[in-house]
Amino acid sequence: MVGNIIVGQSGGPTAVINSSLVGVFQTAKDRGAVKAYGMLHGIQGLLEGKYIDLEDHIKSDLDIELLKRTPSAYLGSCRYKLPEIGENDEVYNRIFETLYRLGIKGFFYIGGNDSMDTIRKLSDYGEMIGANIAFMGVPKTIDNDLAVTDHTPGFGSAAKYIGSTVKEVIRDGRVFDANMVTIIEIMGRNAGWLTGASALARGEDCDGPDMIYLPEIPMDVGDFLQRIGELQKNKKAIVVAVSEGMKLADGRYVCELTDTVAFVDAFGHRSLTGTARYLADQVARRYGCKTRAIEFNTLQRCSAHMASRVDITEAFQVGGAAVKAAFEGETAKMVVLKRLSQDPYQCATETYDIHEIANVEKTVPPEWIDEDNKYVTPEFLNYVRPLIQAELSPIMVSGLPRHLYYDLK
Amino acid sequence: MVGNIIVGQSGGPTAVINSSLVGVFQTAKDRGAVKAYGMLHGIQGLLEGKYIDLEDHIKSDLDIELLKRTPSAYLGSCRYKLPEIGENDEVYNRIFETLYRLGIKGFFYIGGNDSMDTIRKLSDYGEMIGANIAFMGVPKTIDNDLAVTDHTPGFGSAAKYIGSTVKEVIRDGRVFDANMVTIIEIMGRNAGWLTGASALARGEDCDGPDMIYLPEIPMDVGDFLQRIGELQKNKKAIVVAVSEGMKLADGRYVCELTDTVAFVDAFGHRSLTGTARYLADQVARRYGCKTRAIEFNTLQRCSAHMASRVDITEAFQVGGAAVKAAFEGETAKMVVLKRLSQDPYQCATETYDIHEIANVEKTVPPEWIDEDNKYVTPEFLNYVRPLIQAELSPIMVSGLPRHLYYDLK
Repeated sequence: MVGNIIVGQSGGPTAVINSSLVGVFQTAKDRGAVKAYGMLHGIQGLLEGKYIDLEDHIKSDLDIELLKRTPSAYLGSCRYKLPEIGENDEVYNRIFETLYRLGIKGFFYIGGNDSMDTIRKLSDYGEMIGANIAFMGVPKTIDNDLAVTDHTPGFGSAAKYIGSTVKEVIRDGRVFDANMVTIIEIMGRNAGWLTGASALARGEDCDGPDMIYLPEIPMDVGDFLQRIGELQKNKKAIVVAVSEGMKLADGRYVCELTDTVAFVDAFGHRSLTGTARYLADQVARRYGCKTRAIEFNTLQRCSAHMASRVDITEAFQVGGAAVKAAFEGETAKMVVLKRLSQDPYQCATETYDIHEIANVEKTVPPEWIDEDNKYVTPEFLNYVRPLIQAELSPIMVSGLPRHLYYDLK
Repeated sequence: MVGNIIVGQSGGPTAVINSSLVGVFQTAKDRGAVKAYGMLHGIQGLLEGKYIDLEDHIKSDLDIELLKRTPSAYLGSCRYKLPEIGENDEVYNRIFETLYRLGIKGFFYIGGNDSMDTIRKLSDYGEMIGANIAFMGVPKTIDNDLAVTDHTPGFGSAAKYIGSTVKEVIRDGRVFDANMVTIIEIMGRNAGWLTGASALARGEDCDGPDMIYLPEIPMDVGDFLQRIGELQKNKKAIVVAVSEGMKLADGRYVCELTDTVAFVDAFGHRSLTGTARYLADQVARRYGCKTRAIEFNTLQRCSAHMASRVDITEAFQVGGAAVKAAFEGETAKMVVLKRLSQDPYQCATETYDIHEIANVEKTVPPEWIDEDNKYVTPEFLNYVRPLIQAELSPIMVSGLPRHLYYDLK
């Protein structure tokens, strides 16, 4: 492939999304791309003509190392939903005019479900008009809810952060000789992968959470309160992990029982928050004991200082594999990870038709949820454990991790 | 000194309180203490006859290294207020009977303001009855609000966590090309040391928080909202750090404007939470933009994985210095840190009369608060920066930090 490439980042950021950016950038340059552009704020920024020449900003091997360790999206992100093809030609015209003008032969989009919808539409449109541009999706999401791929880069680091932090919170919660219930709220609106990862805290030196509530199973608040009472008979410090997306049997979100102001994004996703606080208040009212509601909030997706080395490496690999596939003539694909071996853990990249991935959500399989004991099964933990292994030490400057910084304004 | 020693941990835990425990234990054994006991749940547990022989549990050099890296109080903690001397002899009798029975010659208590009140009363009582036991306070608190000492062990690690995490949150908050206001709530009910530490995030690669609200200055919510509006004219992603203890001019806590269930502990401290959420809701209602309320909650005091090496070392030193002083005949003292040199940073230990420390709260000096710009001054940062330097890598097992664990039930 002779020509230029462009890469964008989209959706919620992760601790390792910039490692994928590095993977795309380095591999494209190594394979002879003349220019490597970065769109600012994804497709939304590209529509406004916002992009940069990556070589103006990533100038050294040290920059590469810093960028691998920089959380959040270096290029900025967006939650922009492309119109269906035929609904608004103006949008597509503007995008393709820009791509032609920049001499783009390969278009890479690092993102989750919604972002793969963008790749699907652009590749369909490109094929329709005979654009001769490869469109490739690079998987990314802490939620781990993308179809086909064994797991998604970003998930392992968030899981490692959650496991470590839940362990520290459990350690903290049990110091006082008094009844105390801590409810930890974890991201993942429909898929319980991250909430389940709280079970990683359980080990030789830690009990782990006492209960884990995944969004795959509707929540019965009365039953929850009764279980808390049962647990308190044998233990003073109870810690429960719940998904932000917990729903009642009638379909309402648990957090809708609170009075928080809510927002809805372009894809119709409601901002969810307050589940832990609501449940903690219910426990306090019922049992009169001290409670804490802890929301990991964005910390769980941006804690690059606790990133998994396996995750950083795989994030780089999926970026590089997307470029390799495009240079070899593939398009309308997403790179997927395939687990070749569980023990020892080995994983390889493949590519997969974007049409079978976009907008499909992968939740935790029922057989990995222990509904009786409100926990995940050992199989769930066997699946997650390899993804949180090893570290890539932050580059510390003056006591804090140093990042590579582009001023998005 | 021939005999045995006993050590306890009290008040809110920190990431390095166990390093002080190691400092007391190792130094006491090195100097010839026969037995080193640990009271479980501090003075409250001792009153119930709960203590352990530390050598039964800290058995190897590896245990020592793990304990230095274990957050929260290994021995458990308490918030128990001793009665005034003369009010309840029964309590004092029970404590001193236990100390006599165990052949205790040195009593070490690792804690903050309230814990120093315990040391003051016990040493006064011990002197009154001629007990011949040394009572020494070992400073500990993330809040950094103890008098006389330059700073307190526990503060540096919390400050390092806060600086790092605020930086990651800022990075995360600016990815979308939309107005967004993030309010971060930080511990410290009357003293703004930790909230001020959020300014550490500012550097060559990060703007830092846009405003910092310390509890030393009453908050005007109307003025706050107006400042947010001003900031939004030039910047889309605004990040503000606020103390959990923010008060209005009329003396009420900002978080009292919410409807959260509250608890009051034995020292009359009210559980404070909800300040960030309240302010974020006000911003959302006024400006209609997306907001986030992030509470660092207990994470900021238990994040041993991000502990400062300077802090861990000093925590060990103050424990050891307390034992050394007791063995040399001192009592009714707290160990304090004295900064000998700022550049290069050097710090030494001294001892100080406990009566002049207990119940005195050290807040941020007014000249280190830039009230106009809602920030801390460079002098504040010069003071904090040396305390967050360097790391002590966690001992990672199976992807997570390993801790030393005592089953407190």
